Amino acid sequence: MSFRLCLVVLLAACALLARSPAFAEVIPIDDPVAAKIFADAKAKVGFWKLIHFYESQNDQTYCGVASATIILNSLDIESPPAPAIYPFRKFDQSNFFTEAVLAIKPPKLVHLSGLTLDELAGMIRAYGVTVDVHHAAAPMDLDGFRAIASAALADPKARVEINYHRKVLGQDGAGHHSPLAAYDAVSDRFLILDVARYKLPPVWAPAADVWASMATEDSDAKANRGFLVIRIK
Amino acid sequence: MSFRLCLVVLLAACALLARSPAFAEVIPIDDPVAAKIFADAKAKVGFWKLIHFYESQNDQTYCGVASATIILNSLDIESPPAPAIYPFRKFDQSNFFTEAVLAIKPPKLVHLSGLTLDELAGMIRAYGVTVDVHHAAAPMDLDGFRAIASAALADPKARVEINYHRKVLGQDGAGHHSPLAAYDAVSDRFLILDVARYKLPPVWAPAADVWASMATEDSDAKANRGFLVIRIK
Repeated sequence: MSFRLCLVVLLAACALLARSPAFAEVIPIDDPVAAKIFADAKAKVGFWKLIHFYESQNDQTYCGVASATIILNSLDIESPPAPAIYPFRKFDQSNFFTEAVLAIKPPKLVHLSGLTLDELAGMIRAYGVTVDVHHAAAPMDLDGFRAIASAALADPKARVEINYHRKVLGQDGAGHHSPLAAYDAVSDRFLILDVARYKLPPVWAPAADVWASMATEDSDAKANRGFLVIRIK
Repeated sequence: MSFRLCLVVLLAACALLARSPAFAEVIPIDDPVAAKIFADAKAKVGFWKLIHFYESQNDQTYCGVASATIILNSLDIESPPAPAIYPFRKFDQSNFFTEAVLAIKPPKLVHLSGLTLDELAGMIRAYGVTVDVHHAAAPMDLDGFRAIASAALADPKARVEINYHRKVLGQDGAGHHSPLAAYDAVSDRFLILDVARYKLPPVWAPAADVWASMATEDSDAKANRGFLVIRIK
Protein backbone atom coordinates (compact mmCIF):
# COMPACT_ATOMS: atom_id res chain seq x y z
CA MET A 1 0.00 0.00 0.00
CA SER A 2 1.41 3.39 -0.95
CA PHE A 3 1.95 6.00 1.75
CA ARG A 4 -0.78 8.17 0.21
CA LEU A 5 -3.29 5.30 0.10
CA CYS A 6 -2.39 4.37 3.66
CA LEU A 7 -3.04 7.96 4.75
CA VAL A 8 -6.41 8.05 2.98
CA VAL A 9 -7.47 4.78 4.60
CA LEU A 10 -6.40 6.05 8.03
CA LEU A 11 -8.24 9.34 7.58
CA ALA A 12 -11.37 7.55 6.41
CA ALA A 13 -11.21 5.25 9.44
CA CYS A 14 -10.87 8.28 11.74
CA ALA A 15 -13.80 10.00 10.05
CA LEU A 16 -15.90 6.85 10.45
CA LEU A 17 -15.04 6.56 14.13
CA ALA A 18 -15.80 10.25 14.63
CA ARG A 19 -19.22 9.75 13.00
CA SER A 20 -20.01 6.53 14.82
CA PRO A 21 -22.84 7.00 17.30
CA ALA A 22 -20.74 5.03 19.80
CA PHE A 23 -18.33 7.97 19.77
CA ALA A 24 -20.80 10.84 20.11
CA GLU A 25 -19.06 13.64 21.94
CA VAL A 26 -21.10 14.45 24.96
CA ILE A 27 -19.69 17.21 27.16
CA PRO A 28 -19.99 16.85 30.98
CA ILE A 29 -21.41 19.98 32.67
CA ASP A 30 -18.31 20.55 34.78
CA ASP A 31 -16.16 20.91 31.64
CA PRO A 32 -15.14 24.57 30.92
CA VAL A 33 -16.61 24.19 27.40
CA ALA A 34 -19.96 23.29 28.99
CA ALA A 35 -19.92 26.45 31.11
CA LYS A 36 -19.51 28.48 27.90
CA ILE A 37 -22.36 26.59 26.18
CA PHE A 38 -24.58 27.19 29.21
CA ALA A 39 -23.75 30.91 29.25
CA ASP A 40 -24.67 31.24 25.55
CA ALA A 41 -27.77 29.02 25.62
CA LYS A 42 -31.04 30.89 25.14
CA ALA A 43 -33.57 28.09 25.80
CA LYS A 44 -33.00 27.36 29.49
CA VAL A 45 -35.90 28.98 31.35
CA GLY A 46 -36.67 25.85 33.40
CA PHE A 47 -33.02 25.06 34.22
CA TRP A 48 -32.91 26.70 37.67
CA LYS A 49 -36.24 25.17 38.72
CA LEU A 50 -35.07 21.74 37.54
CA ILE A 51 -31.75 21.82 39.40
CA HIS A 52 -33.60 22.99 42.52
CA PHE A 53 -35.24 19.54 42.45
CA TYR A 54 -32.59 17.50 40.60
CA GLU A 55 -32.16 14.09 42.27
CA SER A 56 -30.80 10.60 41.63
CA GLN A 57 -32.96 7.64 40.70
CA ASN A 58 -33.42 5.54 43.87
CA ASP A 59 -32.50 2.34 42.12
CA GLN A 60 -31.39 1.17 38.72
CA THR A 61 -34.88 0.91 37.14
CA TYR A 62 -36.31 4.15 38.56
CA CYS A 63 -35.02 6.55 35.86
CA GLY A 64 -38.56 7.34 34.67
CA VAL A 65 -39.88 7.79 38.21
CA ALA A 66 -37.00 10.11 39.16
CA SER A 67 -37.44 12.15 35.96
CA ALA A 68 -41.16 12.60 36.66
CA THR A 69 -40.47 13.56 40.29
CA ILE A 70 -38.02 16.30 39.27
CA ILE A 71 -40.29 17.66 36.55
CA LEU A 72 -43.48 17.69 38.68
CA ASN A 73 -41.64 19.44 41.56
CA SER A 74 -40.19 21.98 39.13
CA LEU A 75 -43.70 22.87 37.90
CA ASP A 76 -45.03 23.47 41.43
CA ILE A 77 -47.78 20.89 41.04
CA GLU A 78 -49.37 19.94 44.36
CA SER A 79 -47.82 16.70 45.55
CA PRO A 80 -49.13 13.90 47.76
CA PRO A 81 -47.93 14.17 51.42
CA ALA A 82 -44.30 13.22 52.09
CA PRO A 83 -44.34 11.80 55.64
CA ALA A 84 -40.65 12.45 56.54
CA ILE A 85 -40.96 16.19 55.90
CA TYR A 86 -44.57 16.75 57.02
CA PRO A 87 -46.13 19.40 57.05
CA PHE A 88 -44.14 20.18 53.88
CA ARG A 89 -45.09 18.36 50.68
CA LYS A 90 -42.92 17.47 47.71
CA PHE A 91 -42.89 14.69 45.16
CA ASP A 92 -40.49 11.87 45.91
CA GLN A 93 -39.96 8.49 44.26
CA SER A 94 -42.28 6.85 46.78
CA ASN A 95 -45.27 9.21 47.11
CA PHE A 96 -45.33 9.53 43.29
CA PHE A 97 -47.20 6.19 43.29
CA THR A 98 -50.76 7.36 43.99
CA GLU A 99 -53.64 5.01 43.22
CA ALA A 100 -53.92 6.38 39.65
CA VAL A 101 -50.21 5.82 39.04
CA LEU A 102 -50.23 2.36 40.65
CA ALA A 103 -52.98 1.32 38.22
CA ILE A 104 -50.54 1.91 35.33
CA LYS A 105 -47.59 0.02 36.85
CA PRO A 106 -46.79 -0.72 40.51
CA PRO A 107 -43.25 -0.44 41.99
CA LYS A 108 -42.84 -4.25 41.96
CA LEU A 109 -43.01 -4.25 38.15
CA VAL A 110 -41.07 -0.98 37.72
CA HIS A 111 -38.27 -2.65 39.69
CA LEU A 112 -38.24 -5.45 37.12
CA SER A 113 -38.38 -3.55 33.84
CA GLY A 114 -38.62 0.22 34.32
CA LEU A 115 -41.14 2.24 32.32
CA THR A 116 -41.92 2.71 28.65
CA LEU A 117 -42.43 6.21 27.23
CA ASP A 118 -46.22 5.75 27.16
CA GLU A 119 -46.40 4.34 30.68
CA LEU A 120 -44.46 7.32 32.02
CA ALA A 121 -46.66 9.74 30.03
CA GLY A 122 -49.78 8.17 31.57
CA MET A 123 -48.36 8.47 35.08
CA ILE A 124 -47.49 12.15 34.69
CA ARG A 125 -50.85 12.84 33.06
CA ALA A 126 -52.50 11.40 36.19
CA TYR A 127 -51.43 14.63 37.94
CA GLY A 128 -53.66 16.74 35.69
CA VAL A 129 -50.98 18.12 33.38
CA THR A 130 -50.89 17.94 29.58
CA VAL A 131 -48.38 15.40 28.23
CA ASP A 132 -47.61 15.14 24.51
CA VAL A 133 -45.98 11.85 23.51
CA HIS A 134 -43.61 11.91 20.52
CA HIS A 135 -42.06 8.62 19.47
CA ALA A 136 -38.82 9.08 17.53
CA ALA A 137 -40.18 7.68 14.27
CA ALA A 138 -41.70 9.07 11.02
CA PRO A 139 -43.38 11.47 10.53
CA MET A 140 -41.36 12.99 13.44
CA ASP A 141 -37.73 13.71 12.56
CA LEU A 142 -34.66 15.49 13.94
CA ASP A 143 -35.86 18.92 12.78
CA GLY A 144 -39.28 18.41 14.34
CA PHE A 145 -37.74 17.23 17.61
CA ARG A 146 -35.32 20.16 17.74
CA ALA A 147 -38.09 22.70 17.04
CA ILE A 148 -40.58 21.28 19.57
CA ALA A 149 -38.05 20.59 22.34
CA SER A 150 -36.19 23.91 22.06
CA ALA A 151 -39.49 25.85 22.10
CA ALA A 152 -40.62 23.94 25.20
CA LEU A 153 -37.28 24.61 26.95
CA ALA A 154 -37.87 28.35 26.38
CA ASP A 155 -41.38 28.16 27.91
CA PRO A 156 -41.62 28.49 31.72
CA LYS A 157 -44.77 26.34 31.73
CA ALA A 158 -43.27 23.40 29.81
CA ARG A 159 -40.70 20.67 30.43
CA VAL A 160 -39.12 17.98 28.20
CA GLU A 161 -38.34 14.38 29.13
CA ILE A 162 -36.44 11.96 26.89
CA ASN A 163 -36.41 8.17 26.66
CA TYR A 164 -33.21 7.11 24.88
CA HIS A 165 -30.57 4.41 24.45
CA ARG A 166 -27.27 5.29 26.14
CA LYS A 167 -25.05 3.37 23.69
CA VAL A 168 -25.85 5.86 20.90
CA LEU A 169 -24.40 8.63 23.11
CA GLY A 170 -21.25 6.58 23.69
CA GLN A 171 -22.28 5.79 27.28
CA ASP A 172 -22.39 2.44 29.06
CA GLY A 173 -25.91 1.17 29.58
CA ALA A 174 -29.16 0.72 27.68
CA GLY A 175 -32.65 2.29 27.69
CA HIS A 176 -32.88 5.30 29.97
CA HIS A 177 -35.07 8.28 30.93
CA SER A 178 -33.95 11.81 31.94
CA PRO A 179 -35.21 15.40 31.77
CA LEU A 180 -33.75 17.90 29.30
CA ALA A 181 -32.89 21.26 30.91
CA ALA A 182 -31.62 23.53 28.12
CA TYR A 183 -30.90 23.90 24.40
CA ASP A 184 -28.08 25.88 22.82
CA ALA A 185 -28.57 26.77 19.15
CA VAL A 186 -24.91 27.71 18.47
CA SER A 187 -23.54 24.26 19.35
CA ASP A 188 -26.91 22.58 18.52
CA ARG A 189 -26.80 20.68 21.82
CA PHE A 190 -29.30 19.71 24.51
CA LEU A 191 -28.45 19.50 28.22
CA ILE A 192 -29.49 16.10 29.63
CA LEU A 193 -29.98 16.05 33.42
CA ASP A 194 -29.00 12.40 33.79
CA VAL A 195 -30.80 10.90 36.79
CA ALA A 196 -28.31 7.99 37.19
CA ARG A 197 -26.02 10.50 38.87
CA TYR A 198 -24.02 7.77 40.65
CA LYS A 199 -22.86 6.68 37.21
CA LEU A 200 -22.67 9.68 34.88
CA PRO A 201 -22.85 13.49 35.10
CA PRO A 202 -25.31 15.76 33.28
CA VAL A 203 -24.06 16.25 29.69
CA TRP A 204 -24.50 18.51 26.68
CA ALA A 205 -25.26 16.17 23.76
CA PRO A 206 -25.53 17.03 20.03
CA ALA A 207 -29.19 17.27 18.94
CA ALA A 208 -28.60 14.73 16.14
CA ASP A 209 -27.21 12.22 18.63
CA VAL A 210 -30.09 12.76 21.07
CA TRP A 211 -32.47 12.12 18.18
CA ALA A 212 -30.57 8.97 17.12
CA SER A 213 -30.53 7.72 20.73
CA MET A 214 -34.34 8.08 20.89
CA ALA A 215 -34.86 6.51 17.44
CA THR A 216 -34.14 3.05 18.85
CA GLU A 217 -36.67 0.32 19.56
CA ASP A 218 -37.79 -0.35 23.11
CA SER A 219 -38.53 -4.09 23.02
CA ASP A 220 -40.95 -3.78 25.98
CA ALA A 221 -42.98 -1.14 24.13
CA LYS A 222 -42.52 -2.67 20.67
CA ALA A 223 -42.08 0.94 19.49
CA ASN A 224 -39.30 3.47 19.25
CA ARG A 225 -38.31 5.50 22.26
CA GLY A 226 -38.91 9.27 22.07
CA PHE A 227 -39.73 12.35 24.11
CA LEU A 228 -42.48 13.91 26.22
CA VAL A 229 -43.50 17.55 26.42
CA ILE A 230 -45.15 18.21 29.79
CA ARG A 231 -47.15 21.41 30.14
CA ILE A 232 -49.15 23.23 32.78
CA LYS A 233 -51.85 25.83 32.02
CA MET B 1 -47.51 65.66 64.40
CA SER B 2 -46.49 67.86 61.48
CA PHE B 3 -46.41 66.39 57.99
CA ARG B 4 -42.62 66.75 57.89
CA LEU B 5 -42.16 64.99 61.25
CA CYS B 6 -44.54 62.24 60.15
CA LEU B 7 -42.50 61.76 56.97
CA VAL B 8 -39.23 61.59 58.96
CA VAL B 9 -40.70 58.97 61.33
CA LEU B 10 -42.01 56.93 58.42
CA LEU B 11 -38.67 57.07 56.59
CA ALA B 12 -36.82 56.10 59.76
CA ALA B 13 -39.17 53.15 60.26
CA CYS B 14 -38.61 52.04 56.66
CA ALA B 15 -34.83 52.35 57.06
CA LEU B 16 -35.00 50.30 60.27
CA LEU B 17 -37.07 47.59 58.58
CA ALA B 18 -34.70 47.56 55.62
CA ARG B 19 -31.75 47.11 58.00
CA SER B 20 -33.43 44.48 60.13
CA PRO B 21 -31.83 41.07 59.65
CA ALA B 22 -35.36 39.65 59.45
CA PHE B 23 -35.70 41.48 56.13
CA ALA B 24 -32.45 40.46 54.45
CA GLU B 25 -33.04 40.32 50.73
CA VAL B 26 -32.13 36.87 49.54
CA ILE B 27 -32.62 36.24 45.81
CA PRO B 28 -33.97 32.81 44.71
CA ILE B 29 -31.88 31.19 41.94
CA ASP B 30 -34.78 31.10 39.48
CA ASP B 31 -35.10 34.91 39.62
CA PRO B 32 -33.75 36.68 36.46
CA VAL B 33 -31.52 38.83 38.73
CA ALA B 34 -29.96 35.60 40.08
CA ALA B 35 -29.15 34.40 36.56
CA LYS B 36 -27.25 37.66 35.98
CA ILE B 37 -25.37 37.31 39.30
CA PHE B 38 -24.44 33.72 38.40
CA ALA B 39 -23.21 34.76 34.94
CA ASP B 40 -20.98 37.47 36.49
CA ALA B 41 -19.71 35.42 39.47
CA LYS B 42 -16.05 34.48 39.28
CA ALA B 43 -15.77 32.12 42.31
CA LYS B 44 -17.94 29.19 41.23
CA VAL B 45 -15.54 26.44 40.21
CA GLY B 46 -17.31 23.76 42.31
CA PHE B 47 -20.84 24.81 41.30
CA TRP B 48 -21.34 22.25 38.51
CA LYS B 49 -19.95 19.39 40.60
CA LEU B 50 -22.17 20.39 43.52
CA ILE B 51 -25.39 20.54 41.49
CA HIS B 52 -24.52 17.17 39.94
CA PHE B 53 -24.99 15.79 43.48
CA TYR B 54 -27.41 18.36 44.95
CA GLU B 55 -30.10 16.58 46.99
CA SER B 56 -32.71 17.21 49.69
CA GLN B 57 -32.22 16.37 53.34
CA ASN B 58 -34.11 13.12 54.01
CA ASP B 59 -35.84 14.50 57.07
CA GLN B 60 -36.03 17.72 58.99
CA THR B 61 -32.89 17.22 61.10
CA TYR B 62 -30.64 15.84 58.35
CA CYS B 63 -29.41 19.19 56.94
CA GLY B 64 -25.82 18.51 58.05
CA VAL B 65 -25.87 14.93 56.76
CA ALA B 66 -27.26 16.02 53.36
CA SER B 67 -24.69 18.83 53.08
CA ALA B 68 -21.82 16.41 53.80
CA THR B 69 -23.20 13.88 51.29
CA ILE B 70 -23.33 16.47 48.49
CA ILE B 71 -19.86 17.82 49.27
CA LEU B 72 -18.16 14.41 49.57
CA ASN B 73 -19.74 13.24 46.28
CA SER B 74 -18.67 16.46 44.57
CA LEU B 75 -15.04 15.85 45.61
CA ASP B 76 -15.00 12.31 44.18
CA ILE B 77 -14.04 10.76 47.51
CA GLU B 78 -14.53 6.99 47.56
CA SER B 79 -17.82 6.23 49.26
CA PRO B 80 -19.07 3.21 51.21
CA PRO B 81 -21.19 0.81 49.09
CA ALA B 82 -24.75 1.94 48.29
CA PRO B 83 -26.77 -1.31 48.08
CA ALA B 84 -29.61 -0.05 45.82
CA ILE B 85 -27.22 0.96 43.04
CA TYR B 86 -24.53 -1.72 43.45
CA PRO B 87 -21.98 -2.11 41.80
CA PHE B 88 -21.95 1.73 41.67
CA ARG B 89 -20.99 3.61 44.82
CA LYS B 90 -22.03 7.08 45.95
CA PHE B 91 -22.54 8.74 49.30
CA ASP B 92 -26.13 8.86 50.48
CA GLN B 93 -27.66 9.93 53.78
CA SER B 94 -27.63 6.34 55.01
CA ASN B 95 -24.22 4.93 53.99
CA PHE B 96 -22.62 8.18 55.26
CA PHE B 97 -22.87 6.64 58.75
CA THR B 98 -19.78 4.42 58.79
CA GLU B 99 -18.46 3.18 62.14
CA ALA B 100 -16.22 6.26 62.53
CA VAL B 101 -19.17 8.59 61.87
CA LEU B 102 -21.52 6.63 64.14
CA ALA B 103 -19.03 7.09 66.98
CA ILE B 104 -19.56 10.87 66.74
CA LYS B 105 -23.38 10.77 66.66
CA PRO B 106 -25.72 7.97 65.53
CA PRO B 107 -28.86 8.59 63.39
CA LYS B 108 -31.13 8.18 66.45
CA LEU B 109 -29.58 11.29 68.03
CA VAL B 110 -29.25 13.22 64.76
CA HIS B 111 -33.02 12.71 64.34
CA LEU B 112 -33.53 14.41 67.71
CA SER B 113 -31.24 17.41 67.47
CA GLY B 114 -29.29 17.53 64.20
CA LEU B 115 -25.56 18.28 64.21
CA THR B 116 -23.36 21.05 65.57
CA LEU B 117 -20.65 22.59 63.40
CA ASP B 118 -17.92 20.61 65.19
CA GLU B 119 -19.81 17.31 65.05
CA LEU B 120 -20.27 17.71 61.29
CA ALA B 121 -16.59 18.67 60.85
CA GLY B 122 -15.56 15.51 62.70
CA MET B 123 -17.79 13.33 60.55
CA ILE B 124 -16.44 14.75 57.27
CA ARG B 125 -12.88 14.50 58.59
CA ALA B 126 -13.50 10.78 59.15
CA TYR B 127 -13.30 10.43 55.35
CA GLY B 128 -9.67 11.54 55.29
CA VAL B 129 -10.19 15.10 54.06
CA THR B 130 -8.93 18.30 55.71
CA VAL B 131 -11.68 20.28 57.45
CA ASP B 132 -11.05 23.76 58.88
CA VAL B 133 -13.64 24.86 61.43
CA HIS B 134 -14.35 28.60 61.69
CA HIS B 135 -16.84 29.71 64.32
CA ALA B 136 -18.39 33.10 63.51
CA ALA B 137 -16.87 34.89 66.48
CA ALA B 138 -13.80 37.06 67.16
CA PRO B 139 -11.08 37.03 65.96
CA MET B 140 -12.92 35.89 62.79
CA ASP B 141 -15.04 38.61 61.20
CA LEU B 142 -17.02 39.36 58.03
CA ASP B 143 -13.91 40.30 56.03
CA GLY B 144 -12.10 37.14 57.11
CA PHE B 145 -15.10 34.98 56.24
CA ARG B 146 -15.52 36.63 52.82
CA ALA B 147 -11.82 36.23 51.99
CA ILE B 148 -11.54 32.59 53.10
CA ALA B 149 -14.88 31.44 51.63
CA SER B 150 -14.51 33.21 48.28
CA ALA B 151 -10.97 31.82 47.84
CA ALA B 152 -12.20 28.30 48.63
CA LEU B 153 -15.09 28.65 46.14
CA ALA B 154 -12.52 29.48 43.44
CA ASP B 155 -10.45 26.36 44.28
CA PRO B 156 -11.50 23.09 42.57
CA LYS B 157 -10.15 21.10 45.54
CA ALA B 158 -12.12 22.97 48.23
CA ARG B 159 -15.76 23.30 49.32
CA VAL B 160 -17.53 25.50 51.89
CA GLU B 161 -20.34 24.50 54.25
CA ILE B 162 -22.22 26.94 56.49
CA ASN B 163 -24.13 26.48 59.76
CA TYR B 164 -26.49 29.45 60.18
CA HIS B 165 -29.76 30.69 61.63
CA ARG B 166 -32.48 31.13 59.02
CA LYS B 167 -34.28 33.99 60.78
CA VAL B 168 -31.37 36.35 60.11
CA LEU B 169 -31.87 35.71 56.37
CA GLY B 170 -35.59 36.49 56.71
CA GLN B 171 -36.51 32.81 56.33
CA ASP B 172 -38.81 30.67 58.46
CA GLY B 173 -36.90 28.22 60.62
CA ALA B 174 -33.93 28.08 62.96
CA GLY B 175 -30.43 26.54 62.91
CA HIS B 176 -29.54 25.03 59.56
CA HIS B 177 -26.66 23.62 57.47
CA SER B 178 -26.09 23.95 53.70
CA PRO B 179 -23.21 24.06 51.20
CA LEU B 180 -22.14 27.32 49.54
CA ALA B 181 -21.69 27.01 45.77
CA ALA B 182 -20.46 30.39 44.51
CA TYR B 183 -19.48 33.95 45.40
CA ASP B 184 -20.08 37.08 43.33
CA ALA B 185 -17.88 40.07 44.23
CA VAL B 186 -19.99 42.66 42.36
CA SER B 187 -23.14 42.04 44.42
CA ASP B 188 -21.09 40.71 47.39
CA ARG B 189 -23.36 37.67 47.64
CA PHE B 190 -22.90 33.95 48.29
CA LEU B 191 -25.03 31.23 46.69
CA ILE B 192 -26.49 28.93 49.36
CA LEU B 193 -27.54 25.47 48.07
CA ASP B 194 -30.30 25.05 50.64
CA VAL B 195 -30.78 21.33 51.37
CA ALA B 196 -34.35 21.77 52.73
CA ARG B 197 -35.46 21.97 49.13
CA TYR B 198 -39.07 21.02 49.98
CA LYS B 199 -39.26 24.33 51.83
CA LEU B 200 -37.01 26.91 50.16
CA PRO B 201 -34.99 27.28 46.95
CA PRO B 202 -31.24 27.94 46.66
CA VAL B 203 -30.65 31.69 47.22
CA TRP B 204 -28.04 34.38 46.68
CA ALA B 205 -27.58 36.04 50.09
CA PRO B 206 -25.54 39.19 50.95
CA ALA B 207 -22.19 38.26 52.53
CA ALA B 208 -22.93 40.48 55.56
CA ASP B 209 -26.21 38.66 56.17
CA VAL B 210 -24.59 35.24 55.79
CA TRP B 211 -22.01 36.32 58.35
CA ALA B 212 -24.71 37.65 60.73
CA SER B 213 -26.72 34.42 60.33
CA MET B 214 -23.64 32.38 61.35
CA ALA B 215 -22.76 34.74 64.24
CA THR B 216 -25.62 33.34 66.32
CA GLU B 217 -25.32 30.98 69.27
CA ASP B 218 -26.10 27.29 68.83
CA SER B 219 -27.42 26.35 72.29
CA ASP B 220 -26.47 22.66 71.74
CA ALA B 221 -22.85 23.63 71.01
CA LYS B 222 -22.73 26.52 73.51
CA ALA B 223 -20.78 28.35 70.78
CA ASN B 224 -21.56 30.42 67.71
CA ARG B 225 -22.38 28.74 64.44
CA GLY B 226 -19.91 29.26 61.57
CA PHE B 227 -18.45 27.65 58.47
CA LEU B 228 -16.29 24.75 57.33
CA VAL B 229 -13.70 24.67 54.58
CA ILE B 230 -13.32 21.11 53.29
CA ARG B 231 -10.27 20.35 51.20
CA ILE B 232 -8.73 17.40 49.33
CA LYS B 233 -5.03 17.11 48.45
